[in-house]
Amino acid sequence: MIIVVSPEATPDDLDVIIKRIEETGRQAHLSVGQERTIIGVIGTDEPGLEDIFQALPRVESVHRVTRPYKLASREFHPADSVIDVGYGVKIGGTELAVMAGPCSIENEEHIFDSARAVKAAGANILRGGAFKPRTSPYTFRGLGEEGLRYLHAAGKAHGLPVITELMSVRDIDAVCEYADIIQIGARNMQNFMLLDEVGRVKKPVMLKRGLSGQVEEWLLAAEYIMAQGNPNVILCERGIRTFETAYRNTFDVNAIPLVRELSHLPIIADPSHGTGKASLVTPVAMAAIAAGADGLMIEVHNNPDHALSDGAQSLTYERFASMMRSVGAVAAAVERTLPGVWASASA
Amino acid sequence: MIIVVSPEATPDDLDVIIKRIEETGRQAHLSVGQERTIIGVIGTDEPGLEDIFQALPRVESVHRVTRPYKLASREFHPADSVIDVGYGVKIGGTELAVMAGPCSIENEEHIFDSARAVKAAGANILRGGAFKPRTSPYTFRGLGEEGLRYLHAAGKAHGLPVITELMSVRDIDAVCEYADIIQIGARNMQNFMLLDEVGRVKKPVMLKRGLSGQVEEWLLAAEYIMAQGNPNVILCERGIRTFETAYRNTFDVNAIPLVRELSHLPIIADPSHGTGKASLVTPVAMAAIAAGADGLMIEVHNNPDHALSDGAQSLTYERFASMMRSVGAVAAAVERTLPGVWASASA
Amino acid sequence: MIIVVSPEATPDDLDVIIKRIEETGRQAHLSVGQERTIIGVIGTDEPGLEDIFQALPRVESVHRVTRPYKLASREFHPADSVIDVGYGVKIGGTELAVMAGPCSIENEEHIFDSARAVKAAGANILRGGAFKPRTSPYTFRGLGEEGLRYLHAAGKAHGLPVITELMSVRDIDAVCEYADIIQIGARNMQNFMLLDEVGRVKKPVMLKRGLSGQVEEWLLAAEYIMAQGNPNVILCERGIRTFETAYRNTFDVNAIPLVRELSHLPIIADPSHGTGKASLVTPVAMAAIAAGADGLMIEVHNNPDHALSDGAQSLTYERFASMMRSVGAVAAAVERTLPGVWASASA
Amino acid sequence: MIIVVSPEATPDDLDVIIKRIEETGRQAHLSVGQERTIIGVIGTDEPGLEDIFQALPRVESVHRVTRPYKLASREFHPADSVIDVGYGVKIGGTELAVMAGPCSIENEEHIFDSARAVKAAGANILRGGAFKPRTSPYTFRGLGEEGLRYLHAAGKAHGLPVITELMSVRDIDAVCEYADIIQIGARNMQNFMLLDEVGRVKKPVMLKRGLSGQVEEWLLAAEYIMAQGNPNVILCERGIRTFETAYRNTFDVNAIPLVRELSHLPIIADPSHGTGKASLVTPVAMAAIAAGADGLMIEVHNNPDHALSDGAQSLTYERFASMMRSVGAVAAAVERTLPGVWASASA
Repeated sequence: MIIVVSPEATPDDLDVIIKRIEETGRQAHLSVGQERTIIGVIGTDEPGLEDIFQALPRVESVHRVTRPYKLASREFHPADSVIDVGYGVKIGGTELAVMAGPCSIENEEHIFDSARAVKAAGANILRGGAFKPRTSPYTFRGLGEEGLRYLHAAGKAHGLPVITELMSVRDIDAVCEYADIIQIGARNMQNFMLLDEVGRVKKPVMLKRGLSGQVEEWLLAAEYIMAQGNPNVILCERGIRTFETAYRNTFDVNAIPLVRELSHLPIIADPSHGTGKASLVTPVAMAAIAAGADGLMIEVHNNPDHALSDGAQSLTYERFASMMRSVGAVAAAVERTLPGVWASASA
Repeated sequence: MIIVVSPEATPDDLDVIIKRIEETGRQAHLSVGQERTIIGVIGTDEPGLEDIFQALPRVESVHRVTRPYKLASREFHPADSVIDVGYGVKIGGTELAVMAGPCSIENEEHIFDSARAVKAAGANILRGGAFKPRTSPYTFRGLGEEGLRYLHAAGKAHGLPVITELMSVRDIDAVCEYADIIQIGARNMQNFMLLDEVGRVKKPVMLKRGLSGQVEEWLLAAEYIMAQGNPNVILCERGIRTFETAYRNTFDVNAIPLVRELSHLPIIADPSHGTGKASLVTPVAMAAIAAGADGLMIEVHNNPDHALSDGAQSLTYERFASMMRSVGAVAAAVERTLPGVWASASA
Repeated sequence: MIIVVSPEATPDDLDVIIKRIEETGRQAHLSVGQERTIIGVIGTDEPGLEDIFQALPRVESVHRVTRPYKLASREFHPADSVIDVGYGVKIGGTELAVMAGPCSIENEEHIFDSARAVKAAGANILRGGAFKPRTSPYTFRGLGEEGLRYLHAAGKAHGLPVITELMSVRDIDAVCEYADIIQIGARNMQNFMLLDEVGRVKKPVMLKRGLSGQVEEWLLAAEYIMAQGNPNVILCERGIRTFETAYRNTFDVNAIPLVRELSHLPIIADPSHGTGKASLVTPVAMAAIAAGADGLMIEVHNNPDHALSDGAQSLTYERFASMMRSVGAVAAAVERTLPGVWASASA
Repeated sequence: MIIVVSPEATPDDLDVIIKRIEETGRQAHLSVGQERTIIGVIGTDEPGLEDIFQALPRVESVHRVTRPYKLASREFHPADSVIDVGYGVKIGGTELAVMAGPCSIENEEHIFDSARAVKAAGANILRGGAFKPRTSPYTFRGLGEEGLRYLHAAGKAHGLPVITELMSVRDIDAVCEYADIIQIGARNMQNFMLLDEVGRVKKPVMLKRGLSGQVEEWLLAAEYIMAQGNPNVILCERGIRTFETAYRNTFDVNAIPLVRELSHLPIIADPSHGTGKASLVTPVAMAAIAAGADGLMIEVHNNPDHALSDGAQSLTYERFASMMRSVGAVAAAVERTLPGVWASASA
């Protein structure tokens, strides 16, 4: 940690600062410059120290010199993490993960039909929401546990691991029973109690980036889960909130190579939420794979204008199959392979 | 709801759209303009319809004509809500509410001393965190239930209702037992399960605006609580996340008069989080009262550089007392009164 | 300047960095910590150095320790600047500046009538646009030089200094001839060539903050003007662009006390653009004065729905007069006085 | 245009609104719904009308139904525009445009060497700044006209058209004399006077998106240029300003397919500014091409830590050549070809 002291600081002010540093068990190392005095704090950069030093009188700014997360960092764990999510599917290797399915599980028949269709087009993971975070309390909020049972059965019938969102600690046992991957949604990226609890189970967790989550905060949220003993964290970029109103969210493609630089955890791209507009999903999916994403999460619905949620950003079965062909060409260009029927095809 | 149709739409496309509108139990009312056909949807603007119509082919845009919240709206409830939070304190009337205290409850003695000091300076509600949302898992996260007991006792000893944050449904019973006002933090503004649960209790709830929460989403979050039967919702503007890095958050003063226009619910300003910098707290507190806020929430600590959290934005006891004097002058200018010792003084 | 070096750096990497520092005529001061090596650069923090050091191999981050502007800083010039704009009006003292008038100068009669009305309500500076920055090329773009002449004449007739926007270096002579204060609009905050040129004249310049201008960039834009020899710079906060769509811009009230901390230059608030909505102008004007602004800029139009631009945010004459009364009460609470007829009234 | 009227509107209020609509030469078409009255305005959606109707009493919201730009829109001009920039280079066809070179022209030898190196790696357009927009007035601001001459000569020597930024109308003749493409920088996207003037010349213009420019505003800025008679506009996405501080800007990949949907103009990606970090340039360049960009603009410097500006985001010659190989693989996947030496290679 480095502390920059205001030019008005007196020797007494400096003593106060040095004394406070020493109280934390660290040493102060002064550099008296022409315009400012700078104090290097010798010792580990524990989170929370920044706040303490910032509150000292005549402190102009405090700069951390190390990253605040450890378990999630590539410095600590140089090799890419590859996470086994069941049914032979691994996330983070050469083969891309393709999670597809409807926004909400609408009924048993519908999720079975979706599973069949997305598998036929090459998806290797089935998605579907049983608990839906909805901006308005008056919209469809999911089938709950009944939905989880349908999802699990549809995945089993088609040999696909399933992913679904967990919104409340009250539902953790049910979600763990039926899902292969627990999704933490964007609105819960900093629901720290929920992070703690999914950290205590060993299931893979996919952690979506919050609408206004900085990359560092997102990795710290992953660290919450890992610090409780669960190393199986998958990140998911799903667009951030900006001033642009032409799309629902702004897909942050920069985050993909940056996360790969900073962390060993796999990263999935969700261009459905990242754009909110069906016509943009395919080009942004292609871009994400070109930038290094380890897979995709795509909303697919046989009849988007009858979807119970997120119709405007859902692809039809046909359009999803077409997207897979386009993504396949880009994947080959970056030495990645498509999963599912495409893998068999190339084998 | 109004649907704007693309100029390429054929009569068959229009039929598809009209049929879908009729399936929802509504009527379509066409206006064929020179450049676009516009369809008025006759019937209530239920949330979720927007998504459905947006997903129809050749639909260019969908415009809602009514607000998506009802219980929280001033249209539905024209008079200001005034919420009784105990110990004779009411939020939303002529007298301002002043919530003050440390960010975290650090120990029994400290919260008692804080209660005494903030009361002496004119606060009428005691704040203190027992469960702390922290960006890093490695920082102090609060004393938990032990902290709640200290807070409750300190409030009782000094005749002050107390407010504290609830972060997880698991702690709802404990928080309800010890707190007079339940705080929902910015990171949980859209933790819909938590909103549902605090909606089922009758305690006053203070709902902070999320870091990237739009005013409409915030009022919809209030609607979640109210829809479960709890009308005692207090809003709190605490700054939003923008591109500006000179302060921790950007206090959105526009939101104060806008919320008062749209809603009958009281609104509190939190300039401590809204600025993140002690030197800006007093002027922004004054601005918030001038703009029509019903009260303030202020972080106060006897020794900010030894605070276990948020030291850089905490006021000392002396500075808080000085802030109260400055705020008092502005309050008088807008025909509001200060509470506590100031109220007695003027009586 | 402080350079944080990556833990992978070898002694050779450190030598490269030190050599590059020495090439710039500065000295390197190493602190070898447990986790990182930190290099203090001894010598002035010239702008541009950051870029150079950031590009060196194994450099993790570079931190500036001094502010990049000098003439605009309070460190350099501790006392508040008070700027004389003619007709006895001074900006930056105890008396507030109130600039009011129509968005665009529409015709001779209209600007004369506006001058009379705003003066009667207490304004001491007349505003009006002759060159209008419009998002679309197909909207009314102002009367140009003809408008400047009307504005000048209306100001003279009513004893009010006038302010108008300069959009192009081609019009600088005309604007200097007719205006008492040159306005640089938000979209030109970083039109560096224009800043240079208004720096070379001695007229007072009001520099609006850009839609996404950080406070530091804004002060650097002021520095551009001052570096050319013109110390008469007035800042104007007019709202920033955020994710919130409920208002045209988000008025950044934090910027007012922060600018007063960092700089000696006066700061004006423009709640008309800062909100974009007539019903929010008065409360936000009151908030700005409570937070320490040195004055206001307000769009006033006798008939807003016939205004040639910005009708939705314009106050009628009556509403402006009523705003002045409300602002007056807040001004008194912060020991400022209203100008014009109000000053005479209290004399 | 659609006007939504507040439920409190009386028949007299409606009459006022209808009368104002008729004054504009349009007709009002009323739909009286259960909750709101909606008025369709029959006639063209001229820009500026929105403002007028918004200012009417009891108007709740105004919705435009057509796009505000015409010449730039794909509706008006369905086929892709292909722009000839000289030396046989065309932008907007199957072959990608690759603009590369140093941020600033530093001296004659340096720009000649840069031209040679980027051409050898496959660039087909040479970039270099003679007039540099710099946040601080104290940094290197370019060689001015001398730089233009070096750039022109270097382009000519190596058979490459050249692009350089025009910052002021004062320099338009010099820039037109020496450059093949005039660049309008992000900070000048809404410098409307400059847009008008480059609209009056026939040179190709590359218009960068502003730091907080919405896609619609950007296309309107293009419309400014086209409305003056210059159809040769090339758009350039260079990253937007968001809350994320891990990179200098956030490259907005969504904008690429959206612009292609809305407009016929070619679009170039600038991942150097879009990321601000050399390690992210290659993956984001690949992403942009995968998403449909018509080319790239890349900062290249033989010795980034001695660059006079933007060193941290510049690629070395080697790294640029390596980027071209990676981009080539993605280009092939989307049926685009690389230019320059790569084109000859494949011929």
